[in-house]
Amino acid sequence: MNKSQKSMIALLGVLLVFFGFVITRIGIAKPASTVKIAKIPAGEYDPAVWGKFYPLQYESYKKNSIMEPSPTGYGGSLKVQKSDMMPEIKTNFKGNPFSVDYTEDRGHVYALEDIKETKRIGPKSPGACITCKTPYLEKLVQETGWGYAKLPFSQVMDTIPSHGYISCANCHDPENMNLRVINPAFIEAMDRKGVDVTKASREDMRSYVCGQCHAEYFFEPNTSRVVFPWDKGSKPSDIYAYYLDKPLGFVQDWQHPDSKAAMLKAQHPDFETWSTGTHGKAGVACADCHMPYERKDGQKYSSHTMTSPLKNLDAACGTCHTQGSAWLMDQVKTTQDYTFEVLHTAGQNVTRAHEAIKKASEIPNVNQDELANARELVRKAQWYWDFVAAESSMGFHNPDQSLNSAAQASEFARQAIEAANRAAGINLL
Amino acid sequence: MNKSQKSMIALLGVLLVFFGFVITRIGIAKPASTVKIAKIPAGEYDPAVWGKFYPLQYESYKKNSIMEPSPTGYGGSLKVQKSDMMPEIKTNFKGNPFSVDYTEDRGHVYALEDIKETKRIGPKSPGACITCKTPYLEKLVQETGWGYAKLPFSQVMDTIPSHGYISCANCHDPENMNLRVINPAFIEAMDRKGVDVTKASREDMRSYVCGQCHAEYFFEPNTSRVVFPWDKGSKPSDIYAYYLDKPLGFVQDWQHPDSKAAMLKAQHPDFETWSTGTHGKAGVACADCHMPYERKDGQKYSSHTMTSPLKNLDAACGTCHTQGSAWLMDQVKTTQDYTFEVLHTAGQNVTRAHEAIKKASEIPNVNQDELANARELVRKAQWYWDFVAAESSMGFHNPDQSLNSAAQASEFARQAIEAANRAAGINLL
Repeated sequence: MNKSQKSMIALLGVLLVFFGFVITRIGIAKPASTVKIAKIPAGEYDPAVWGKFYPLQYESYKKNSIMEPSPTGYGGSLKVQKSDMMPEIKTNFKGNPFSVDYTEDRGHVYALEDIKETKRIGPKSPGACITCKTPYLEKLVQETGWGYAKLPFSQVMDTIPSHGYISCANCHDPENMNLRVINPAFIEAMDRKGVDVTKASREDMRSYVCGQCHAEYFFEPNTSRVVFPWDKGSKPSDIYAYYLDKPLGFVQDWQHPDSKAAMLKAQHPDFETWSTGTHGKAGVACADCHMPYERKDGQKYSSHTMTSPLKNLDAACGTCHTQGSAWLMDQVKTTQDYTFEVLHTAGQNVTRAHEAIKKASEIPNVNQDELANARELVRKAQWYWDFVAAESSMGFHNPDQSLNSAAQASEFARQAIEAANRAAGINLL
Repeated sequence: MNKSQKSMIALLGVLLVFFGFVITRIGIAKPASTVKIAKIPAGEYDPAVWGKFYPLQYESYKKNSIMEPSPTGYGGSLKVQKSDMMPEIKTNFKGNPFSVDYTEDRGHVYALEDIKETKRIGPKSPGACITCKTPYLEKLVQETGWGYAKLPFSQVMDTIPSHGYISCANCHDPENMNLRVINPAFIEAMDRKGVDVTKASREDMRSYVCGQCHAEYFFEPNTSRVVFPWDKGSKPSDIYAYYLDKPLGFVQDWQHPDSKAAMLKAQHPDFETWSTGTHGKAGVACADCHMPYERKDGQKYSSHTMTSPLKNLDAACGTCHTQGSAWLMDQVKTTQDYTFEVLHTAGQNVTRAHEAIKKASEIPNVNQDELANARELVRKAQWYWDFVAAESSMGFHNPDQSLNSAAQASEFARQAIEAANRAAGINLL
């Protein structure tokens, strides 16, 4: 071996050691923790206090005050009447407060303001109405169990400070920031399905914290306890079947003054619709799309601006879907347009069904069996329609099911009209 | 430097050279060509001749003779009557040969056998019916242009040898195996849309070769030339709007004997439905799912068993969708079940519309304007229904559009019944 050969080998050796060192460094490099966990006292519900320790999350949370429509024209965080787009809402909910005031939901920070302003709730409404509006729910439940639900709304409302809108403590354990559910209605319903929410995985919790409120419910007669109707499943047909059994003595939300049908009001069944749709079945959590990861100054954090993912499409959808934001927006808009078209027709057919039944009922010697049949059909039709109309995604959370449900609503409404015609013995409309 | 240090460096050097060699080999490794291109003479249409040079493709092509249902219960390559599942087919196509014989399609190898056996085509049918059944189409067009289309079917059929079913030459140039389209109807329709098929990308061609036949068409009156109705777009509404203009003097496929409505028969609009759906818009070609890549003895090749991707789900869907075959199957089945439910109801409503219009037309002094209105509505209803019913995927190629179309079909059929009621002045059904 001559000198130059030795030098060559030595150089190679040095290079090898150098690259080995680099690779080892990369391999063992440990990122600095991006979040320091602060211990916040139990019972602290003011988001501004939490915000001091979690400034990135808090800054994004405060953006929930921004009011803007969804880019596709459906939903959004503006306080507009849903009946502007679907006037059939006014006739289908006649006799129910939703016919008077049915505003689109604004951001979480407006929860208390909006519940005070809505014409749907008055001083005599049950305290149960506060359930999903404040983290002080935890305190109410600790102190009264379900007792608060039956108290007058105004009495319960008076105990909530102005900072007590939906915020950090609704979803986080103040001690360790773990995700948690504080709504007992959700915990009880999941328990009946065999799911212990306290032992849920973090990934499941990233949907459960949302699902504890973005879900269908009813108030148990007498106690006003909030109940989630999930015992038979989460599809429109499952929940309708559940209500047919008159659970806990619950028969109706109200009686329609024209058709005299015993009606149900669907309440934003977002969690149910998502859970049976593609994203839900694929394990994509609510937070994956509605609270996408962002970065600031090298820190990664979940956006706490909970709104339409379409407003932040690259971060929300782009992680999994690489077709580009214009393409993705077009997909969502197409699904929503197709859904709205069928839904709008269904809603109008439901309106006509109430009208036909009213006319039939005014005819002497009307066939009572057929009339009862018509009332059952319009109740069912409106449920299948409302399950989509009251949901927050205009079909996007579960396109197939939503389009199917809206189409079935139309069919049931048409059948209700036919039954009313048969009851009357004439063609009513 | 002592001896052991020198040995260490030498060893490191050897290792470095060794790994460098390995990496270089991997980097520059050039795979052997998997396919040798054989020059097959132009005008050779016997797949067995082609098969000698492309044994893997040919072996998989021969499996098109396997007859089995689709795993979800919709479609498949069995010769069963579609009316078994949808009896409304018999009434909705009354007066049209599809009411007599409407078998599910079998594999390409049965193309000639099935067209001879079907009760829809007789000796007096136009030669145009052979267009999509044989690669000998190339020869017919070379020799007669569109002339063959007007000749009697039996005369054209007699010129086709028994090996002349749909095969290699329908989609491949024999000289270089490039993909090609031989159906002039497709080339002309794309040309009207500004697309030169001869300059299409390979990826586009992986759909065009299928789309040249799996598409809606009509025969030009007098010439029997095949025409694809794509000038206004590919959606059900676009094509219906096109037909409203009575293109090339074409008014109807047949008149329904009960309603006397001028009817259209949709013909497997697979290409149209796919093109406006998610897969189509994302650039996923027909062949990506229906002819997935496989391997044998280290050779990669496209499966030429063109059938439901559900029969080969891991290869067909698993490349892009990693949720596992059971999950994927459930997704497809859910979409198809939801679609079928709405479609079946729509088909039954169309049947009832024909019936109502027949009854109305038999009433003296019927309102002719309302009757004409009812006939236009049932024609439209059946088109929107048939666009989904005649399509090969039970909604899967485009779930939103298919569900929307089926739902609209129901609505138009119901409106037709109402118009018939108004025409008659009584409640007919």
